[in-house]
Amino acid sequence: MRATIIHGPRDVRVEEVPDPTIEQPTDALVRIERACVCGSDLWSYRGERATPEPRPIGHEFIGVVEEVGSQVERVEAGRFVIAPFTHSDGTCTNCERGLTSSCDNLGVWGAAGADGRQLGGAQAEYIRVPFADGTLVPLPQQPEVGDYRDLLALSDVLPTGHHAARCANVTEGGTVVVVGDGAVGLSGVLAAQRLGAGRIVAMSRRPDRQTLARRFGATDVVDQRGDEGVAAVCDLLGGRLADSVLECVGTEESMRQSLGVLRPGGHLGFVGVPATDPALHIGAIFPHNFHLAGGMAPARPYIDELLPDVLAGRISPGLVFDRAVPLGNVGDAYEMMTLRKSIKTMVTP
Amino acid sequence: MRATIIHGPRDVRVEEVPDPTIEQPTDALVRIERACVCGSDLWSYRGERATPEPRPIGHEFIGVVEEVGSQVERVEAGRFVIAPFTHSDGTCTNCERGLTSSCDNLGVWGAAGADGRQLGGAQAEYIRVPFADGTLVPLPQQPEVGDYRDLLALSDVLPTGHHAARCANVTEGGTVVVVGDGAVGLSGVLAAQRLGAGRIVAMSRRPDRQTLARRFGATDVVDQRGDEGVAAVCDLLGGRLADSVLECVGTEESMRQSLGVLRPGGHLGFVGVPATDPALHIGAIFPHNFHLAGGMAPARPYIDELLPDVLAGRISPGLVFDRAVPLGNVGDAYEMMTLRKSIKTMVTP
Repeated sequence: MRATIIHGPRDVRVEEVPDPTIEQPTDALVRIERACVCGSDLWSYRGERATPEPRPIGHEFIGVVEEVGSQVERVEAGRFVIAPFTHSDGTCTNCERGLTSSCDNLGVWGAAGADGRQLGGAQAEYIRVPFADGTLVPLPQQPEVGDYRDLLALSDVLPTGHHAARCANVTEGGTVVVVGDGAVGLSGVLAAQRLGAGRIVAMSRRPDRQTLARRFGATDVVDQRGDEGVAAVCDLLGGRLADSVLECVGTEESMRQSLGVLRPGGHLGFVGVPATDPALHIGAIFPHNFHLAGGMAPARPYIDELLPDVLAGRISPGLVFDRAVPLGNVGDAYEMMTLRKSIKTMVTP
Repeated sequence: MRATIIHGPRDVRVEEVPDPTIEQPTDALVRIERACVCGSDLWSYRGERATPEPRPIGHEFIGVVEEVGSQVERVEAGRFVIAPFTHSDGTCTNCERGLTSSCDNLGVWGAAGADGRQLGGAQAEYIRVPFADGTLVPLPQQPEVGDYRDLLALSDVLPTGHHAARCANVTEGGTVVVVGDGAVGLSGVLAAQRLGAGRIVAMSRRPDRQTLARRFGATDVVDQRGDEGVAAVCDLLGGRLADSVLECVGTEESMRQSLGVLRPGGHLGFVGVPATDPALHIGAIFPHNFHLAGGMAPARPYIDELLPDVLAGRISPGLVFDRAVPLGNVGDAYEMMTLRKSIKTMVTP
């Protein structure tokens, strides 16, 4: 089959690799219908994260089950499925608590699986899914192709935005600021709107993203950054700062900006993957009694929560996909997203 | 009147100073019945925090109202009162939210008041209380002298331990670890027990504190620290880590120890005042989806919550006071606490 392999900075190639097969009785084999490129894939692409040896890449997909192992009970061949960006067993203590991203048998597509072996990437034709019963979300019926992008958004970007909103304790009528206008930040705006936030300030400097932020429910847009951005938000809110801030970037600068617009006792939810391991100083938190929470979203249970709204057409998270390319041109997707010519690009195998 | 003035490291003196008077119509004047020395007073005493010029010290007291300004309505002369360790107006947005420690008119006894002027300290005979209606908690009747120490504990140490427990989301049946065996840590044990924790592990190396921790509800005591302490707690809990950790020290080491015993998705409540501004690295939080919250306790509303249990004799938080001295010997209190010969020393003017 064809699969995307990253070799190093600005070097992703679509190569012929062996077809995956069922290896464990709990595996499923999925034919990928749609995949996409994530902001975190770009770190390796831009060389901000090392690629010591070539590896498959991509961790978001929807598709159709081709074959299942003998112990798989919840999905069967022919079933259309959504995959969260990690696999999880669904049975350990953390999964039972709803924290599938801390599963005892966690694996991230394109990275190491629970057994330490390399997992397949999602920017490919097929993928082997360990712990299929715990991992895959079967749809009741085959969706329309026109709905694929909304369903694909459930793999990572919407659950991650939703996680930011949950961690930031977004409540009915609350005031929310979203830091970061990537696909995750925009999804955070949508998630905050869905949870009933009264006012949502999107911090964004790019017109296309500002437009989508408003479509997703932003009531205000602030296009300054850093200290200027903090001052602009304070002006806008009349000194009453945000109850909830969604930090969707992952740098020390964006953390500082986030804390700068948070009211005393407010909640910061952070989901921006910390590329450089930013530090939070207790001295900046302590005087204000801030609440902080964040990390890798437990996408699996969130898909259950979010899917009905997608199927009913109440939300259209797939609007973050403003471009689409065939698998053979996946390199273009990386380049367009790196150049910010695309918010998020869908890939069709 | 006589008041304790700190001049520099290991130099606290009881001096004659002018009697405080009513300055604002919202002030009350309180005759102090009992005060005490706080772990945070010791920073200045040990020279870890500079004392650029002599200042009054002490921020915990109970006493009797001597006189009130013309606009004070909720307390009157002769009323026995408990004072939280800060004053607050009770009417601003933060006070209305219950976050009196972020009051727009915040002042800490012995430090700067809302108007920037030096406030009196509590290790003294009398004190002027700004915003008396918002600040003071009147008792229904004059308490017995034997109950003073339990009531004095409501000024700071129990509300602060309770804040740690609340920030750490202590729940019925939950597993709790308390890091720090000072008066605040021990009060945190009591607060966790009061909130129904199922298992409470106190990390303490000193026999007198271990004994009190058990009396306050600790089910287990671990006397190792750092990595060894983390390993010992993990062994004790059989690998299922704590749902809630109360960090009651305020150093980078204690933060690391606290995160080391927290389960994925668990809650860390920190109230140890950060003397050295420890840093938290997002990379240590992100993979585990930890929740963190903490800061200066909003003691005022917590006193309302905790007082009924004290008055009914259901809890005895005053057991943290293992020594008492007259005001003239307040220097002994500092020295005994510095040498850890006393957990917390009460002072009688």
